[in-house]
Amino acid sequence: MVEKQSLRLIISLAVVQIVFLVIFGVKIEYHETAKPLDTVSPSPVGNVYPMFQDVHVMIYIGFGFLMTFLKRYGYSSVSFNLLLAAFSAQWAIIIRSAISGNWQVGVMEMLTADFAAATILISFGAVLGKTGPLQLLIMATIEVVLAQVNEHIGYHILHTADVGESMFIHAFGAYFGLAVARVLYNEDVEKSTKEGATYHSDLFSMIGTVFLWLYWPSFNGGAVEGDQQHRAVINTYLSLLACTVTTFIISSLVDKRGKFEMVHIQNATLAGGVAVGTSAHMPIQPWGAMLLGTVAGVISTLGYKYLTPALSSKLKIHDTCGVNNLHGMPGILAAIGGAVAAALSSKDTWGDSLYSIFTAMEPTMKNTTIGTNTTMVMTGGRSAIEQGGYQMAALCVTLIIAIVGGVITGFILRIPFLDSPKAEQLFDDQNQWNVAEEGFPGSGDLPLNGKPNDDTKIPML
Amino acid sequence: MVEKQSLRLIISLAVVQIVFLVIFGVKIEYHETAKPLDTVSPSPVGNVYPMFQDVHVMIYIGFGFLMTFLKRYGYSSVSFNLLLAAFSAQWAIIIRSAISGNWQVGVMEMLTADFAAATILISFGAVLGKTGPLQLLIMATIEVVLAQVNEHIGYHILHTADVGESMFIHAFGAYFGLAVARVLYNEDVEKSTKEGATYHSDLFSMIGTVFLWLYWPSFNGGAVEGDQQHRAVINTYLSLLACTVTTFIISSLVDKRGKFEMVHIQNATLAGGVAVGTSAHMPIQPWGAMLLGTVAGVISTLGYKYLTPALSSKLKIHDTCGVNNLHGMPGILAAIGGAVAAALSSKDTWGDSLYSIFTAMEPTMKNTTIGTNTTMVMTGGRSAIEQGGYQMAALCVTLIIAIVGGVITGFILRIPFLDSPKAEQLFDDQNQWNVAEEGFPGSGDLPLNGKPNDDTKIPML
Amino acid sequence: MVEKQSLRLIISLAVVQIVFLVIFGVKIEYHETAKPLDTVSPSPVGNVYPMFQDVHVMIYIGFGFLMTFLKRYGYSSVSFNLLLAAFSAQWAIIIRSAISGNWQVGVMEMLTADFAAATILISFGAVLGKTGPLQLLIMATIEVVLAQVNEHIGYHILHTADVGESMFIHAFGAYFGLAVARVLYNEDVEKSTKEGATYHSDLFSMIGTVFLWLYWPSFNGGAVEGDQQHRAVINTYLSLLACTVTTFIISSLVDKRGKFEMVHIQNATLAGGVAVGTSAHMPIQPWGAMLLGTVAGVISTLGYKYLTPALSSKLKIHDTCGVNNLHGMPGILAAIGGAVAAALSSKDTWGDSLYSIFTAMEPTMKNTTIGTNTTMVMTGGRSAIEQGGYQMAALCVTLIIAIVGGVITGFILRIPFLDSPKAEQLFDDQNQWNVAEEGFPGSGDLPLNGKPNDDTKIPML
Repeated sequence: MVEKQSLRLIISLAVVQIVFLVIFGVKIEYHETAKPLDTVSPSPVGNVYPMFQDVHVMIYIGFGFLMTFLKRYGYSSVSFNLLLAAFSAQWAIIIRSAISGNWQVGVMEMLTADFAAATILISFGAVLGKTGPLQLLIMATIEVVLAQVNEHIGYHILHTADVGESMFIHAFGAYFGLAVARVLYNEDVEKSTKEGATYHSDLFSMIGTVFLWLYWPSFNGGAVEGDQQHRAVINTYLSLLACTVTTFIISSLVDKRGKFEMVHIQNATLAGGVAVGTSAHMPIQPWGAMLLGTVAGVISTLGYKYLTPALSSKLKIHDTCGVNNLHGMPGILAAIGGAVAAALSSKDTWGDSLYSIFTAMEPTMKNTTIGTNTTMVMTGGRSAIEQGGYQMAALCVTLIIAIVGGVITGFILRIPFLDSPKAEQLFDDQNQWNVAEEGFPGSGDLPLNGKPNDDTKIPML
Repeated sequence: MVEKQSLRLIISLAVVQIVFLVIFGVKIEYHETAKPLDTVSPSPVGNVYPMFQDVHVMIYIGFGFLMTFLKRYGYSSVSFNLLLAAFSAQWAIIIRSAISGNWQVGVMEMLTADFAAATILISFGAVLGKTGPLQLLIMATIEVVLAQVNEHIGYHILHTADVGESMFIHAFGAYFGLAVARVLYNEDVEKSTKEGATYHSDLFSMIGTVFLWLYWPSFNGGAVEGDQQHRAVINTYLSLLACTVTTFIISSLVDKRGKFEMVHIQNATLAGGVAVGTSAHMPIQPWGAMLLGTVAGVISTLGYKYLTPALSSKLKIHDTCGVNNLHGMPGILAAIGGAVAAALSSKDTWGDSLYSIFTAMEPTMKNTTIGTNTTMVMTGGRSAIEQGGYQMAALCVTLIIAIVGGVITGFILRIPFLDSPKAEQLFDDQNQWNVAEEGFPGSGDLPLNGKPNDDTKIPML
Repeated sequence: MVEKQSLRLIISLAVVQIVFLVIFGVKIEYHETAKPLDTVSPSPVGNVYPMFQDVHVMIYIGFGFLMTFLKRYGYSSVSFNLLLAAFSAQWAIIIRSAISGNWQVGVMEMLTADFAAATILISFGAVLGKTGPLQLLIMATIEVVLAQVNEHIGYHILHTADVGESMFIHAFGAYFGLAVARVLYNEDVEKSTKEGATYHSDLFSMIGTVFLWLYWPSFNGGAVEGDQQHRAVINTYLSLLACTVTTFIISSLVDKRGKFEMVHIQNATLAGGVAVGTSAHMPIQPWGAMLLGTVAGVISTLGYKYLTPALSSKLKIHDTCGVNNLHGMPGILAAIGGAVAAALSSKDTWGDSLYSIFTAMEPTMKNTTIGTNTTMVMTGGRSAIEQGGYQMAALCVTLIIAIVGGVITGFILRIPFLDSPKAEQLFDDQNQWNVAEEGFPGSGDLPLNGKPNDDTKIPML
């Protein structure tokens, strides 16, 4: 007989998936270029699909394996990553359609659905090992809505630019997740002996790291075209190169014997991709991209070394994957970089790119009626400084929605009905999985010897 | 001195590879667009190559690592996968050329050669750990021919559609392999203690799962273009999303304590890609794709839970990877889905796509001579219902050729000369490999302590 | 307090990264098609970027994981691979700009920077586990310059063809690295017990192998277009297929009991990609590509079996990854193949490809003044035989620069200041890394039991 808490999850998931199916059935149709009667429009697959697939690898292999560093939580990391992303992508297609009023799905919508999933997976990193699957699904359900609303405000109300969505995905996902983690905080996490890595779990994690690192230019460049896309790709590549070297420098510098730390290499090397995400398509120059990457490498590595332990002990924010260091602070850095670039932008140096990147800066012609004369009058768009201010405003809105939304979500997740893991269940696959019978490698446990999963009787902490 | 059974393999492989070289030398030339004198035709590389590479990853990483779940058979899984695929791809280029009469090789032929290899790798999954390399090569030699003949019948005689080849690859490969497995059945497999997974072998397997999952839209869309390709990609993506959530639901539901099972996540999440494979390029609508994925997730997970053990104990069909659940039943579902879509198709709703997908439905003009008058007469193509019937006929032909061919192949593989593994050699790399000296992780064995491969004296079962 | 040797590395890396940033700031600008004012030129991203990403995976996943086969050196393999490549790519962009006088960066420069990194990573394979990070950085700094100078000589002075750079990358990197390894040779390496694989480290290594194998057609075809690119892709694919089957044949043949060896499958299967690298874009015919792959598989596997141990014991060249077998000898084979193809080339059979591949063979018009008459005179280009000779000359120049450069670099690396690892530090992550506390899997060590990294006191050899 299935246990009660499993039944709750099963029923919830089943209801939601049926609702998804019904909504898709009633509302969603193919994108114009995918309809059978259309024989004119060229297919967008050729241009968009290769970069979509790069992002697809980042979401499912990258995030999934990055989180397998925990020695006893590998099944959950890679599998719940898959479940959460598949769930969130469907939900995001619906929510984005509802916001935009355009109920179509095509390869570009697949890309943005994957982007939406990334936000949730970043938050997942903050609460990794400390939440059950039902909690995760409730979190994803709420967060997808708030993140898409926030993105809509940023793009369509504040008219800001954020090509790699370092504000709308990375900062949002990180601070939402950290707010949830704060509310769910329980001192048991500090006592658990299961929150470590093994030699091989660290190598599994590096599969995730390297694929994220490789395809990040596609993440930042996938949604634009032409020279903007070319710059996005170049800037992201250069930022990551500089960030990587910097991470090794700082990792050794802060160790008492000068050794490197795998957790830094696994994570902080990626911060350069986040840090350049808002401004990647802007002409920030190759050195500008490298500078952002360098600063990100410093901030992120120092964050892992000093800030993460302090956040846990002082502020009771336990951040399992250190998303504050990989997505949070570099996301804020990206926002500042974008705002500075905006404030320094001009038609002379940016050419046509200026108005296509910052649409609200473009002067518009308006009919003005004075007495009986109606004349066309040029209304100035935003100044560069103003645009920079709006960029910062978008960051503030993002942080507010993320943190307030995360706190509220955290309290919802504390409802006992949702089965928060108990002390001995933290960071442990055995709550949710039938684990292979030899037990966990390198854990010092005896092999389970053909009596798998008899764990419920034994306190494991 | 090399042992006899190894010599047989070496000589067979060497002869075959030399024959391949000679046939390529005598017959095969470059595709027109790859010939040096051609300066006109645009290269197909830009359009086809990115999707070819996605499929390439599926064949060699996807299938290869998916099968590494066995704790003592990882070397063989990933390496024999490489050998079998490299062998089958060359053989398939030859056989396909012989059938079509067009002895050219280009990037599209590389794609279809990879497809051909997939068929063999699916059958490999059914007999994994229970066959020696010489047996596998004989199997591949026969199966490539039969599968290509079957595909030719399906496309060029029955004029059916099967864009992702769920009938011609997935169902064929599965039932061919199961037929072989039935004939090779030996009760020793039930007693072996080596047919399990370890914690990390399950994670290696997930590398295969996720790459298969990610690139499946390219598998189903790689061979078409325009709006058909766009739909193939969208439908496959959506089917996989729905299938993934469904798999988690059923996996928990059928466990006595509601836990998830890695084997379900590793395999059943992919069934949605198979299930939509025949109809992916048809306008089955987003909800139609999701419905197919949902049903596939249910069938496949239930199959792993209940059907696989029953097949082994009742019907003596031991299916190591559960290919019946991942490729077999979802392949039949795909065929039915394609037949239903065909039966419901019409020129009004499908537009130009109708005749390009179902070529035999297109009316043709024929010269008819009545007395001395010759007039052009429109001859009606197949009706929608007829096309649906032909789709089902293609499935039947596929199943017949696969099962009969598989049974015959199985009897051939029982020839003692081919060295079927003995009881203690089942699911064990040590028959064919010099295993790293510390032995198998988590196997409870003592380290081999510098005396690697001294295994022949020790019964290991 | 950070130790002295770490401080040296930290300061060196920091200085270099700052110098990179300054040079990029002063000199490097975006490629024309990435400048914001350019609204005309089409973006090269669509054509080049997918193949760049394939190569990108080869460099960072392929080389990185291929080297994780060592049981106690996985952190270093994949992480120093990342560091070295990120460092070398930046340095290569600078050096290549200085040589060409064109200080721009775009997606094609990202591709060539990745190529440049490959050279260094091949040399890294020769010295893997026997060099500290500061030594590796000094090596990379010197080698990038020499390799780019050598490539410049080959392309722009000798006017030779080497589309997949089997001479300029593979042979160069291998013999440079072997020369370094020779100078650094120390008998301790023969005594170390740490230079082995474990079962799972062999599987991690196969991730690298298979991704290298899959994407090699992009490596050989990424830098050309049209029918040349199409041929490069086809030839590389076919060469690898034949090489793979051949490797299995020879691996079994040379084993005393006919078993396969993982090190052969991990490496020699790839030799076909190297062997066809010089001539991949030439019309060498499908069988020609397969023949090169077959020969490469034989040479490479035999090299691993017989030559690598002999080089170490007789010539004191200890080649950790066997780069002589994977990159060195197959690189020479590629060069010979290219020279033979050149010598047999003709306008009749090669068409326009002849002069675009071998630019120096094209006749040129020159103004010749005789008395007061100036007339246009056709000057014959090189003959086919001459071009073949130049191809061999390029190989010789490559080998000379690589070996002499490597020897000199080796002596520089012996400066005590650079902290060559001591006997007990060979092939061991613990020198540079805080290793996960359970110690190394399968190593027979006791768990480190919460006292990680206390290794400095314990002799580990």
